[in-house]
Amino acid sequence: MSVIDQLTREFSRLPGVGPKTALRLVHHLMKGSPDDARRLAGAIREVADRIRPCAECGNFSENERCAVCLDARRDPAVLCIVEEAYEVGAVERTGSFRGRYHVLGGHLSPLDGIGPDELRIPALERRLDGAGGGVREVILATSAGMEGEATAVYLEGLLRPRGIRVTRLARGIPVGSDLEYVDGSTLAEALAGRREM
Amino acid sequence: MSVIDQLTREFSRLPGVGPKTALRLVHHLMKGSPDDARRLAGAIREVADRIRPCAECGNFSENERCAVCLDARRDPAVLCIVEEAYEVGAVERTGSFRGRYHVLGGHLSPLDGIGPDELRIPALERRLDGAGGGVREVILATSAGMEGEATAVYLEGLLRPRGIRVTRLARGIPVGSDLEYVDGSTLAEALAGRREM
Repeated sequence: MSVIDQLTREFSRLPGVGPKTALRLVHHLMKGSPDDARRLAGAIREVADRIRPCAECGNFSENERCAVCLDARRDPAVLCIVEEAYEVGAVERTGSFRGRYHVLGGHLSPLDGIGPDELRIPALERRLDGAGGGVREVILATSAGMEGEATAVYLEGLLRPRGIRVTRLARGIPVGSDLEYVDGSTLAEALAGRREM
Repeated sequence: MSVIDQLTREFSRLPGVGPKTALRLVHHLMKGSPDDARRLAGAIREVADRIRPCAECGNFSENERCAVCLDARRDPAVLCIVEEAYEVGAVERTGSFRGRYHVLGGHLSPLDGIGPDELRIPALERRLDGAGGGVREVILATSAGMEGEATAVYLEGLLRPRGIRVTRLARGIPVGSDLEYVDGSTLAEALAGRREM
């Protein structure tokens, strides 16, 4: 297989990249300067070599522990549980969370053989019970679909007996949305969760 | 800048990849096995290190000369002129061309300062006049837009005085198209170029 075919195949493995897009990317790299392509290759290699899951929370990290876990100003008493490490960035960008994280690595999905032990749930329990204890509140930020909900319910069952306050992200109308474009169950949740003005 | 930000930036330089897509690609690589990411990085590096323009025709090549130019069974008397090296593949895949190629590297565009000397047109003239002479026919396969047409007309002026037969790809209805979706100028060209059944 030629180096061009090899690269086309590797590109097509990426999400959202079909064979035609892959070929277009290859042509772009071949047309540009080899140094640009080498810089891209180097950046991919750096990520492959240096990024690993934080030993504490599972967030992406260049070190044994991630920047959030190492930051002494972050409140260790409040944990936000997300499914994927890249969701940490979304919460961080709001600038309104000062606690720490725990990344599950997915959601429960018994049909696919994903039980608690396939996720970072045992690590969560060790974290709650261990020296790092003292967690007062856990915010469940699992995905809003059925499996994310089931995962949240399962976690609630683990957390409540420990006397930990369990909250989840509010459901409601996205900021800037017109009511007529919001689906019925979101609207129902928004009504049920209405607040005093 | 973190290695994640660096890779996000490099991905966003690719055509059709915005900041959100770039981030999604980075997350995909971080979530997958580091070996997959290393294989992608290696394939990009191989292309950057090994692919260069064929010294004869400008096609992509892993050697001094490309596979088409090295193939003694290809007719050196018929040249197909394309704008970009990746267009060679499109003609090759038809399986119906047995001549050789010449890649211009773009089209004439005086407003952008792209004249004949910025393209591989001097190389074409050397090729026609040099030891590699004996070209009987040149097929102009420049793009169908205005600048491609202007480039074709310019090349015709170079080729005719040399007594070379100059042809261009037929314009007409794409195979499988409904007449009502074909634009007016294509339809006009298809009428003008109608053939006996």
